[in-house]
Amino acid sequence: MRPILASAVAHACGDDRPLLTDAFAAAVEYLHCASLVHDDLPCFDDAPIRRGQPSVHVAFGEAVAVLVGDGLIVLSFQTLADVADEAGSRLGPLLSILAESAGAPNGLVAGQAMESEPSWRLSTYHAAKTGALFEAATAGGAAAAGGDIARWRQVGIKLGAAYQTADDIHDRIAPDASLGKPTGQDERLSRPNSVDAHGLDGAVTELKRQIEDTIAAVPDLAEARFLRSLIEAQAKRFVPAARRLA
Amino acid sequence: MRPILASAVAHACGDDRPLLTDAFAAAVEYLHCASLVHDDLPCFDDAPIRRGQPSVHVAFGEAVAVLVGDGLIVLSFQTLADVADEAGSRLGPLLSILAESAGAPNGLVAGQAMESEPSWRLSTYHAAKTGALFEAATAGGAAAAGGDIARWRQVGIKLGAAYQTADDIHDRIAPDASLGKPTGQDERLSRPNSVDAHGLDGAVTELKRQIEDTIAAVPDLAEARFLRSLIEAQAKRFVPAARRLA
Repeated sequence: MRPILASAVAHACGDDRPLLTDAFAAAVEYLHCASLVHDDLPCFDDAPIRRGQPSVHVAFGEAVAVLVGDGLIVLSFQTLADVADEAGSRLGPLLSILAESAGAPNGLVAGQAMESEPSWRLSTYHAAKTGALFEAATAGGAAAAGGDIARWRQVGIKLGAAYQTADDIHDRIAPDASLGKPTGQDERLSRPNSVDAHGLDGAVTELKRQIEDTIAAVPDLAEARFLRSLIEAQAKRFVPAARRLA
Repeated sequence: MRPILASAVAHACGDDRPLLTDAFAAAVEYLHCASLVHDDLPCFDDAPIRRGQPSVHVAFGEAVAVLVGDGLIVLSFQTLADVADEAGSRLGPLLSILAESAGAPNGLVAGQAMESEPSWRLSTYHAAKTGALFEAATAGGAAAAGGDIARWRQVGIKLGAAYQTADDIHDRIAPDASLGKPTGQDERLSRPNSVDAHGLDGAVTELKRQIEDTIAAVPDLAEARFLRSLIEAQAKRFVPAARRLA
């Protein structure tokens, strides 16, 4: 999802350096995978299953799972380093976008850390935990192709918010098998969830509004057609399960 | 130790962009700290004490310790991103040097992973676990100042080998208090140690040879005087405890 998003944005911006786009798209996915492996650890979610398979610590032990996460974070940055010559002056912005999405105060690590606090704002938590990588995907896709970083960043922020709401709804209503990971985790772990905050009907209404908002933010370019259809296709995937209860 | 080394090498190379040198020196230290926090975790060394204080997981819990390590890895790269404008074309080499020292197949993560394998070569393990950051410190110090990366890299490789031998000797003979961390860890964890491989006398002889070798590799420049005296000072710190038994 995230690398496709980065690639679609780069395409909309002309994609004049496809090697750079590919490297950044891979880098974003490595960060995402790192966060999944570490979040599944016994000291966090203690999740036995991921993508329908035993999670890394269950299959290979906790030590390997910590190192796999560490290694994936490093690999993400290494992947950018490997295209430094191709990147030229675009390397700095790409590196900043990647590092900000991963770290503190607004990235993955910060989002995960909020779970250790007694309370926090739902929107701040979602922005860091889920939104940061969507934001990086669109901002980085634009940066890789020399596009308008600030404008495309907004698309990612909005899409990330929609994705998090959809994930919250799924966590409460979907059977385990449809996500390839345990559901009901938020409730079990007393974690903030949009369904608690707004009720199920409210969350579904919010989701629909967020998807419309995202599509409206996509620049009106012929080259952005693929991206718009991608968001619409994802939206269809999100909404059916929710609509049944709306 | 590692940031001072990077700064001393940059100084020897003219240090024409001190902001860049400082950022890289900090980045190397962040990586080092990340590796300490994660290596101390219960699934690795389960070390209760570090730098004379409770280790991070003992003081703040395992979840926070995993995130502190992750956050420090990211902060390391973020620190480079923050000086991208100052770095210009030096950013690519600096980023590569940093990522290689942290990841696989030759960096910190790889070295730590070898401990999960049934057997491995002592020199390969040491090069990854300890040498990688010394190598990064000297190579990166040169890269930050536009110096000869390959030549200075050799100094770091040699110094890293000496440092590891010294650390191995300390692990077997020093009282806990002198290092601020538990000793005898290698034996307890069946970890390869130069003293096992060469005997104590052999390890001490090896250490002296390695220090001479390092000093000989330092380019004969007036500006390298501080670096040479730094290595000699460190060597004096290493050798006394060893000499008593040599």
